[in-house]
Amino acid sequence: MFSQTTEYALRAMACLALYPDQLVATGTLAQMTKVPSNYLAKVLQQLGGAGFIEGRRGVGGGYKLARSAGDINLVQIINAVGRLKRIESCPLGLENHGTRLCPLHRTMDRASALLIDMLKDVSLQDLIGDSQNPTKPLCDRQTMATLSVRGAPAKN
Amino acid sequence: MFSQTTEYALRAMACLALYPDQLVATGTLAQMTKVPSNYLAKVLQQLGGAGFIEGRRGVGGGYKLARSAGDINLVQIINAVGRLKRIESCPLGLENHGTRLCPLHRTMDRASALLIDMLKDVSLQDLIGDSQNPTKPLCDRQTMATLSVRGAPAKN
Repeated sequence: MFSQTTEYALRAMACLALYPDQLVATGTLAQMTKVPSNYLAKVLQQLGGAGFIEGRRGVGGGYKLARSAGDINLVQIINAVGRLKRIESCPLGLENHGTRLCPLHRTMDRASALLIDMLKDVSLQDLIGDSQNPTKPLCDRQTMATLSVRGAPAKN
Repeated sequence: MFSQTTEYALRAMACLALYPDQLVATGTLAQMTKVPSNYLAKVLQQLGGAGFIEGRRGVGGGYKLARSAGDINLVQIINAVGRLKRIESCPLGLENHGTRLCPLHRTMDRASALLIDMLKDVSLQDLIGDSQNPTKPLCDRQTMATLSVRGAPAKN
């Protein structure tokens, strides 16, 4: 359901949220998110364009969140690289459907509304600080141990 | 949220459902769904491969539903051309996440579950025979009038 790009954007944002206020090297980001470097560069560019991350690309480059993880919800991340919006008028431009929509697009709109309602209530912080689920996104056992000791990403 | 291909597949299926047991010409399908012919041909091939439609492509070709519109739900159509499935194990293959998933993928799985639950209860028939919403998918006023008189698609 979620596109590859959306999945990758969520991984990248989760990775940066794990290391707040630190510039995470692009190599480390690629390694932890398991996203091919070229693809990741495009995703990071979109996230930067939307104002969610700041930093610089290329060798020696790195990124960090531009705002607090608690202030970014999942709908915002998804919309930075894709589209999770209500359907406001007939996508075929049919006058008699207008903004009331036919049963097909009304159903698709209802599905979008359901998803938006759920995901706008989940912040990036919720994903990395869930007390009910101590597993952290992207982190194997070794990374979890490093995080709890130093909180610093490996240099790359 | 839904991909272009998913949107087009739903339109094509709705169009065929409007004319049950009739071979709808590919030109008519393209015209009513407003989908570019080449793109539509690929979508129809996928829908045929999944066993939802039958017919033949090319000049003089046409398609019809291979089963009753009441027996096809929207999750099935979406999965014929894309992917709307639960997340059953860590997409990154991390052992410590396994099938329990981290908070990121558990949230994405919860979103998928919500959508599947909603859309599996909507059949193709529900979209074209909704008594609460007499507007038919893809149909402008003129097509609605033709449908109510003859039920036959224009030849093309």
